[in-house]
Amino acid sequence: MLYTKIPTQRPHTPLLDSVDYPAQLRQLSVDQLATLADELRHYLLYAAGQSGGHFGANLGVVELTVALHYCYNTPHDRLIWDVGHQAYAHKALTGRREALTSIRAQDGLAAFPTREESEYDTFGVGHSSTAISAALGMALASRYQNQQRECIAVVGDGAMTAGMAFEAMNDAVAHQADVLVVLNDNDMSISCSTGGFAKHLAAIWKSGQSVSLDAQGQVAILPHPEWTYTSRLHDAATDAADNLFKALGFEYFGPFDGHNLEELTQVLNAVKQRKGPRLIHVYTKKGKGFEPAEADPIGYHAITKINPNVSTSVPVKSAKKYSDVFGDWLCDEANLDQRLLAITPAMCEGSGMVEFAKHYPQRFFDVAIAEQHAVTLAAGMACEGLKPVVAIYSTFLQRGYDQLIHDVALQNLDVTFAIDRAGLVGEDGPTHAGAYDYAYMRTVPNMVILAPKDENECRQMLHTAYHYPGPAAVRYPRGTGVGAEIITEMSILPLGQAEVVAEYGTAPYAVSILAFGSRVYPCMAVAEQLAEQLNIAVRVVNMRYVKPIDHRMIQQCALDSDILVTVEEHAVMAGAGSAVNESIVAQSLSVSCLNIGLPDQFLAQATPAQMLASVGLDEVGIFHQIKQRYQSLTEQAEHDKISAKVFASQ
Amino acid sequence: MLYTKIPTQRPHTPLLDSVDYPAQLRQLSVDQLATLADELRHYLLYAAGQSGGHFGANLGVVELTVALHYCYNTPHDRLIWDVGHQAYAHKALTGRREALTSIRAQDGLAAFPTREESEYDTFGVGHSSTAISAALGMALASRYQNQQRECIAVVGDGAMTAGMAFEAMNDAVAHQADVLVVLNDNDMSISCSTGGFAKHLAAIWKSGQSVSLDAQGQVAILPHPEWTYTSRLHDAATDAADNLFKALGFEYFGPFDGHNLEELTQVLNAVKQRKGPRLIHVYTKKGKGFEPAEADPIGYHAITKINPNVSTSVPVKSAKKYSDVFGDWLCDEANLDQRLLAITPAMCEGSGMVEFAKHYPQRFFDVAIAEQHAVTLAAGMACEGLKPVVAIYSTFLQRGYDQLIHDVALQNLDVTFAIDRAGLVGEDGPTHAGAYDYAYMRTVPNMVILAPKDENECRQMLHTAYHYPGPAAVRYPRGTGVGAEIITEMSILPLGQAEVVAEYGTAPYAVSILAFGSRVYPCMAVAEQLAEQLNIAVRVVNMRYVKPIDHRMIQQCALDSDILVTVEEHAVMAGAGSAVNESIVAQSLSVSCLNIGLPDQFLAQATPAQMLASVGLDEVGIFHQIKQRYQSLTEQAEHDKISAKVFASQ
Repeated sequence: MLYTKIPTQRPHTPLLDSVDYPAQLRQLSVDQLATLADELRHYLLYAAGQSGGHFGANLGVVELTVALHYCYNTPHDRLIWDVGHQAYAHKALTGRREALTSIRAQDGLAAFPTREESEYDTFGVGHSSTAISAALGMALASRYQNQQRECIAVVGDGAMTAGMAFEAMNDAVAHQADVLVVLNDNDMSISCSTGGFAKHLAAIWKSGQSVSLDAQGQVAILPHPEWTYTSRLHDAATDAADNLFKALGFEYFGPFDGHNLEELTQVLNAVKQRKGPRLIHVYTKKGKGFEPAEADPIGYHAITKINPNVSTSVPVKSAKKYSDVFGDWLCDEANLDQRLLAITPAMCEGSGMVEFAKHYPQRFFDVAIAEQHAVTLAAGMACEGLKPVVAIYSTFLQRGYDQLIHDVALQNLDVTFAIDRAGLVGEDGPTHAGAYDYAYMRTVPNMVILAPKDENECRQMLHTAYHYPGPAAVRYPRGTGVGAEIITEMSILPLGQAEVVAEYGTAPYAVSILAFGSRVYPCMAVAEQLAEQLNIAVRVVNMRYVKPIDHRMIQQCALDSDILVTVEEHAVMAGAGSAVNESIVAQSLSVSCLNIGLPDQFLAQATPAQMLASVGLDEVGIFHQIKQRYQSLTEQAEHDKISAKVFASQ
Repeated sequence: MLYTKIPTQRPHTPLLDSVDYPAQLRQLSVDQLATLADELRHYLLYAAGQSGGHFGANLGVVELTVALHYCYNTPHDRLIWDVGHQAYAHKALTGRREALTSIRAQDGLAAFPTREESEYDTFGVGHSSTAISAALGMALASRYQNQQRECIAVVGDGAMTAGMAFEAMNDAVAHQADVLVVLNDNDMSISCSTGGFAKHLAAIWKSGQSVSLDAQGQVAILPHPEWTYTSRLHDAATDAADNLFKALGFEYFGPFDGHNLEELTQVLNAVKQRKGPRLIHVYTKKGKGFEPAEADPIGYHAITKINPNVSTSVPVKSAKKYSDVFGDWLCDEANLDQRLLAITPAMCEGSGMVEFAKHYPQRFFDVAIAEQHAVTLAAGMACEGLKPVVAIYSTFLQRGYDQLIHDVALQNLDVTFAIDRAGLVGEDGPTHAGAYDYAYMRTVPNMVILAPKDENECRQMLHTAYHYPGPAAVRYPRGTGVGAEIITEMSILPLGQAEVVAEYGTAPYAVSILAFGSRVYPCMAVAEQLAEQLNIAVRVVNMRYVKPIDHRMIQQCALDSDILVTVEEHAVMAGAGSAVNESIVAQSLSVSCLNIGLPDQFLAQATPAQMLASVGLDEVGIFHQIKQRYQSLTEQAEHDKISAKVFASQ
């Protein structure tokens, strides 16, 4: 059934309601599966409307999910969803149907499969292209333990371009491991798929044939059912006769219609009888069964709640998203400098590069999900005197870390990193937190690292980093800024110089707060409260640079303040505060310090505001921690005075 | 000519001597090239005997190097050697022939191509599989700049298994970029190649055909010349009809004999006329032309100097290599615990796993050069209740960083990381330094990080990490230890507890040294000198754990010492000393601190001893820095006393 609206009332789903777990699903006849899938899709539409979240990919794999749980003995057989943003149907069929309306919320279901949540979630995911490695690990472990089980990785075509998937397939063949890869080919990652691999898939499809198994279990090449998704046929540049998966040593089956339950269950049951590394190639349609999403799969990659009756964060007055601040800057800088090229690993929309891609198609490089390559590609461009900008999420730059060190920083190449989604990211949870970038970047020589306090500073810092003649990174948070006015004219900020942004009273200060990035404005509010409530002198510094850090500012604050507080939206361990500590030690300064930042733990999903509050990084938490330190220091001082008096009177 | 001995005298090479640069090479006739190659090989044998260093791979690409510089207009055409350990012939032909005898030594030629050394070194390398990305970056930059040039990446078959190479090929097709990949297929990385890709190459070879171009520039499939390297034919499991490179959208040519200069130059000249992504597949023999290396290519991957008349480091009394300590432990622990599995990304020999692989072939997993996959494979195995050990060099774990965070630490899985080559690695230079692992690991929740002071503690720490029920890493240096007796019986070290290893005098101490890993013994010697020469009380603590750090020990030392010194073979920025600083801050302690470690710069190659001395991390340097701090603090105290007296007398 093709739905046209997201239901606001829980739909009537009697068959679905009878299936709490896959064991019950497996009691149904094949004929009933289509009804179940239809009810499941209807329910998913309703639930997604309630919760918001990933959308198109989930609608696309409804039939595939039903077929996999129907044909395989989950959880004994290990089913691993790559990325996992398409696992809502899986969650619904494995004991979590009604909880889906709370997915991605605090204390609700996680956005992705997690091992803690269910035994059916055999591997925690979030980043792409890990599933084949994990499935292979499980398959090899099971072989070693003499356990008979199938290990199945469901991987999208977009995720297949990441080298990690290739590494895992190569290794699976080496071990002739019993792994099944289900290639869920919907012709797009979040953006449209790109590159030789996508063309290869198109060529296979264009061939008009499917590789399947006949009734005797023999491999047979059959004429292809007529496909209805003709959009990509023009794209088939490579020769389908050269099958990449077969070349690597996988048994290849497909392509098949991923929405045809009869065909899917037949194929899965047949392929199940075989051993070794096998790949089933199915075509699915993102947004399948929901008309608006079928028409605009990129726009419907994820949706917001249709009925947000609980507002947990107050929207800032017409504030711009940081990704849009970046996108605007990118266009403006490109207009000024012909040498600018921009690179994204498959995050054109998320990184705010749609306009740039439109205006500067010759200077825009979407390299597919391929973070390692993205960074070194930039290095190669920089070698030719161009000035590449790599737009990447903090959490995904972890994938290009060696390349950042070995190919960019070591050669001191002029590459700008625009690091989005730094800090806590909210509903996507711990897999997507950008909590480690200060640490892993600042330990690397030649790096310059900036963090803006607001949208305008973000723009100026991007300009500054761009004009710095070596590797420089600007890291900014997910979502909107504080609503600061953005100055079109751009100027270069002096290297390694902080700025004082608030002073209550005059030196000596009871407290100097050295704040980084997103925490500058909250600290300004905190300072005002501290000054008022405790009647003390407080200074707030926007540190601007994590590296090089402003040693002179730190010295000044250490000399004229009783307490020096660092505040950052990053792990305290090895973070920006730690850089301040190092500076204090290196300068042989002596001051009472307090490092405020993320605790040493992975944080479950919630809204960003809830997450910040839960770890004391909101205004209330920062205020409380500083006040506590101030009071204990005051008490200590009182105590010392009394001791001194006692001592003097003896 | 087949050589049997490494010459100790500079051979007579008149033709080679006339070729200082490729422009002169290009004046020769094709017939002269074989003579030149023979002289070059002879000279390389001599030079390698003088310098030590990479060997087999260099002998294998003599003809290929000659042909590439002959057919292409280097450096205008960009030639990039992947990994770069095979670039000695390239260095010899590009102005650095006589300097080759000093390769890998302090102030000598770098082990790998580096941009600083020559304009012919278009991209700095060291880690594998970066060349196609870099070449693509240059090709796209050149297209954008309307520059006509060929960008050529020479990549070994071993390096092709790394996903990064696949990512780059995928992207090259997306852009139809003018890049040429020369696949140098010698059927091995450092160890033997493994996996589906290697089988695919073998299958292509087995097909008995070559894809080439005829006189009219048309693609033609020709009967294959008779190959003499028959060892891998049994390995051809996949179907050569499915060509992986063609599937990805590359034009494929080959295979060809990489030692036949006539054929090579013909092919290169023909392929040069074509556009878009092309791949030429050549077979070469590691160690070619030197009988002992042809017979044992793994043993001859690198050699030591045959005539080490300058001994820069005193060998320690029969000390064991740390990699062998690891290898022994691995076998012993495997014998005790059936759940142990071991994984290496193509570093079986380097990591000391040969014995383990021999004794436990079912439990040994060489995943090829594929660090990302290696880490997540371990995660998958751990999900099944097994206990994988990932043996990896510090510098290569940078390639698996996201997987360490996202797949292992976030799920708190029981994976042990045995991190070899941590700290400075000497002759391989900055690309291989393991200087950042404390920082990038300690910022990640759930990680436990240990660093041994000697061989026996390494064994006990591996045992401890192995039995810790979550992710734990032991990081140890390249080379031999201090010659400590190794106790066979293994015991678990208490979590997060340091040990006092030396005390001169009693509390209060003038200096407490908190030393990590390789720096513990040098600090013990330093402490003795400090105590003697300055007549002060000194304590040395072996911290053992970087995470969790021993807060109580730090507290004690801060309370009873005037100066607290941290010493580590790791970047000071975000390193172990930084963790100590954080602890001091978190505990509101007050003590004069000094962080000693690696400076914030990439260090050029030298011997490890020379490198340590150059940055003040040897005994002399550590002693000097502590003494200086002690003296300045003493002077300050004197000054304060006088000030106090002046103040008192007023």
